[in-house]
Amino acid sequence: MAGAAGGGRGCVTLCGAQIRDLLDAKHNVLFDCDGVIWNGETAVTGAPEVVSLLKQRGKRVFFVTNNCTRPRENYVQKFSRLGFTDVAEEEIFSSAYCSAAYLRDVARLQGKVYVIGCGGVLKELRDAGVPVAEEEDAEPGASIYNCPLDPDVKAVLVGYDENFTFMKLAKACCYLRSSECLFLATDPDPWHPLRGGRVTPGSGSLTAALETASSRKATVIGKPSRFMFDCISSQFGLDPAHSLMIGDRLETDVLFGSNCGLATVLTLTGVSTLQEAFAFRDSQEPQQKHCAPDYVVESVADILQALEE
Amino acid sequence: MAGAAGGGRGCVTLCGAQIRDLLDAKHNVLFDCDGVIWNGETAVTGAPEVVSLLKQRGKRVFFVTNNCTRPRENYVQKFSRLGFTDVAEEEIFSSAYCSAAYLRDVARLQGKVYVIGCGGVLKELRDAGVPVAEEEDAEPGASIYNCPLDPDVKAVLVGYDENFTFMKLAKACCYLRSSECLFLATDPDPWHPLRGGRVTPGSGSLTAALETASSRKATVIGKPSRFMFDCISSQFGLDPAHSLMIGDRLETDVLFGSNCGLATVLTLTGVSTLQEAFAFRDSQEPQQKHCAPDYVVESVADILQALEE
Repeated sequence: MAGAAGGGRGCVTLCGAQIRDLLDAKHNVLFDCDGVIWNGETAVTGAPEVVSLLKQRGKRVFFVTNNCTRPRENYVQKFSRLGFTDVAEEEIFSSAYCSAAYLRDVARLQGKVYVIGCGGVLKELRDAGVPVAEEEDAEPGASIYNCPLDPDVKAVLVGYDENFTFMKLAKACCYLRSSECLFLATDPDPWHPLRGGRVTPGSGSLTAALETASSRKATVIGKPSRFMFDCISSQFGLDPAHSLMIGDRLETDVLFGSNCGLATVLTLTGVSTLQEAFAFRDSQEPQQKHCAPDYVVESVADILQALEE
Repeated sequence: MAGAAGGGRGCVTLCGAQIRDLLDAKHNVLFDCDGVIWNGETAVTGAPEVVSLLKQRGKRVFFVTNNCTRPRENYVQKFSRLGFTDVAEEEIFSSAYCSAAYLRDVARLQGKVYVIGCGGVLKELRDAGVPVAEEEDAEPGASIYNCPLDPDVKAVLVGYDENFTFMKLAKACCYLRSSECLFLATDPDPWHPLRGGRVTPGSGSLTAALETASSRKATVIGKPSRFMFDCISSQFGLDPAHSLMIGDRLETDVLFGSNCGLATVLTLTGVSTLQEAFAFRDSQEPQQKHCAPDYVVESVADILQALEE
């Protein structure tokens, strides 16, 4: 356990016995989803078995995803569809779910939230009882010069939104003119890989537009902010020292783990590479070092081998 | 001439005789438009007379605007409509015109440019003979997952665009995956004031979204970048030491003047305030000091008084 013992975030590549030792020392395993246990609609080979085996060995397993496009109940269906047969809704913490929890429990929002986002965000807000400012259907000739603004809006929440328009950006910008209006973002992800080498802009991209237009900074709910861990912890009482974060993005998943005091594992089935991990580890910037993982595996399938041996 | 003599960017408030002395020392006067000679569709009182008088006294007058929404020919109409009767198209340098000039003369673009922007940008590009990638009308079901991408696109240009959509952002992001694809922005303006206390997001806001999504930085054509001065200078041979920049935004107009070695005047009929000017002047950051103007006037009407006395 060189990485953990030295506190050095050493990017130590783990194999069989070392993985077993690490898991023996941890009660809770937090997984990112995209790039870790699945890629789009394809499960990473062995990932469903890893989740089942960890649970059978008495570990508590959680899924911590910055993806805000689905409500929790749809995630349960996706898990099931991809062969994860024993995942419960309560174990899934998405940035949409946690944003709703933040507005209800932390901000105790008095008023409505104006949402740039998709169905997943809207559903979680409604389930949490957070009032959402309804979008009027755009009337012909409606523009930022004359469109109605809802005086009850006291927060703006930005997430991934394939129906993002200039008008939504401009309205959000007007709401944020009031310093009493909260400014939240589901997650900071700048982009997401698609099949065929394409990419799609992430919530972080839309948030950057609004931050620039409003001269304000958003409070970010998703990883690497520690709020999602606090959210899990408030319900399940996790001890960071006994928890492990497994992710594929250094600047979000691994930094999140570092921020929360968790041991971190980078898996190479997603966005970040081993070279990028080494670059963070060897950086002279203390902040950058927090993006270097304690451990590295090729795939979560490596855990399966360790558990089965 | 305390400000100029000391090189101190002293925010010296000018009146009558001082303005006359300053103008005597300069051959060229560069004006920003919005907030300086007009606000929306209303000319600043006295501004048309100032422009005429300067020309009668043998000064060369130029208009340097980050506003990319109109082609030059429409600007001539606006000048005329607002009472500026002797402004020629050749004296108007907009970020749209200069972006087209950059692509044609500096980048010597071989291929097409994908435009996030409005009619002013498209018209200037066509006038300059720069090929523009045509937007297909969105077919039902078209998305970033399957939309066609034009292999001839070798540059992305971002300007103010009230028809900005997620799809445009995503397509631009895909084009920028190729390091050979240039990334330009007409201007960095984060937002613009509208009547009634509303604001509208500027080109800088849309550019921030694309910069985040593409992990790249745009080359900015408009103020405070010095390219617009180079553009004027290549046609009219201006000597910076004999040129004066008058603007209302410290971070764009005044910084532009500083970057180009011009004397700078802040006018208080637009966005920036005297307090903000003092804050830049008194800042400990050398970079911030470049945003402090040499001189301050309440309005360009003050110049009229000086010229008429």
